[in-house]
Amino acid sequence: MLRLHGFAVSNYYNMVKFALLEKGLPFEEVQVFASRDEAFLAISPRGKVPVLECEHGYISETSAILEYIEALGQGPALLPKGAYEQARVRELARHIELYIELPARACYAQAFFGLQVDRAIQAKSREELLGGIDALKRLGKFAPYVAGDSLSIADLYFLYSVDLAAAVAHKLFAIDLLGDFPKAKTLLERFAENPNVQRIAADKDALMGPFLAHMKARFGG
Amino acid sequence: MLRLHGFAVSNYYNMVKFALLEKGLPFEEVQVFASRDEAFLAISPRGKVPVLECEHGYISETSAILEYIEALGQGPALLPKGAYEQARVRELARHIELYIELPARACYAQAFFGLQVDRAIQAKSREELLGGIDALKRLGKFAPYVAGDSLSIADLYFLYSVDLAAAVAHKLFAIDLLGDFPKAKTLLERFAENPNVQRIAADKDALMGPFLAHMKARFGG
Repeated sequence: MLRLHGFAVSNYYNMVKFALLEKGLPFEEVQVFASRDEAFLAISPRGKVPVLECEHGYISETSAILEYIEALGQGPALLPKGAYEQARVRELARHIELYIELPARACYAQAFFGLQVDRAIQAKSREELLGGIDALKRLGKFAPYVAGDSLSIADLYFLYSVDLAAAVAHKLFAIDLLGDFPKAKTLLERFAENPNVQRIAADKDALMGPFLAHMKARFGG
Repeated sequence: MLRLHGFAVSNYYNMVKFALLEKGLPFEEVQVFASRDEAFLAISPRGKVPVLECEHGYISETSAILEYIEALGQGPALLPKGAYEQARVRELARHIELYIELPARACYAQAFFGLQVDRAIQAKSREELLGGIDALKRLGKFAPYVAGDSLSIADLYFLYSVDLAAAVAHKLFAIDLLGDFPKAKTLLERFAENPNVQRIAADKDALMGPFLAHMKARFGG
């Protein structure tokens, strides 16, 4: 049985959870917050979630976990057939991770946890975010899914990055990140109807209180 | 024939070039600097290099390109057999990219191009770099290659990220990043003997003058 270590508020955790649910793979959730405790670093060397525990050992880093789950070959495929088609999905996933999720993440502390993020870091994030959204507009198919007519790994990054990035852009920069990106809004609305997305959102809501208390104890604010 | 778009000073370009050379795949180099010109954005939506042109079209993002080259199944494999073993290689590659290359990159402008990087961004990079090196120590096998006894995709990231990160750490933070990491130093020395690495280094040296002139024209400094 696969065991998914992490916590239901983490967007990367939820990307993997969504993949497992969509594929119908049985798995157990092991709740752990990200930390630099020695015991956790032994399974996740950078102290990050999620971590997937499988029969062979542990895997950290969402992109490596998603490829591993895909290679199990069970349930609906989240990568198309064909090396070039797969490359296009991975290209989209990386664009969303590197140029939308990561710059937004640099501002999560201020947007969500009441802490202050330095102005220079905010300015850099703002520029990168706008560039990332522009790239997604150019590269994404939204027909209706990010990479075409089937759900793919690119959708996992989209679903659990773009909402947070839009919140950061709204709160910190007063920008409507999806204002002229109706295809992205339509896809987010479509996902909101998905029962697995709804379950993940409910689990996130249920943990939000304890998670914020954990963050406050750790960082103040 | 594969065509590799980019320039010989780019470390991501050189990761792909090294993979192609090690696999003995024929390819043509198309020199282009990273830019936000419309014509270039049409093949690389974030304006970055490298871009691989294959019979089906263009692929940007190094990780997507490397997976594509691997899927061609020609020359020595840079991913092991077995889904879990592959996951471990991808996990290492992502650790090096996200927690060593990217934080170092945030400081390249100051370390290499005579520009000023904001103190807050420097401080963040310093902390992330130290965490990234710690993670690489925990996760890397160095036996003698990063992920074990065979050259893998993780080595490409290592070879063309750690040297630049060490230069950034030395110049900006007066830290010897590999000071207590002899296995990493030994592997870099081993790579320095590789004819393909030497060819890539010579091509880089030859382009360095024109590239710095290009950067100066673009950004001043």
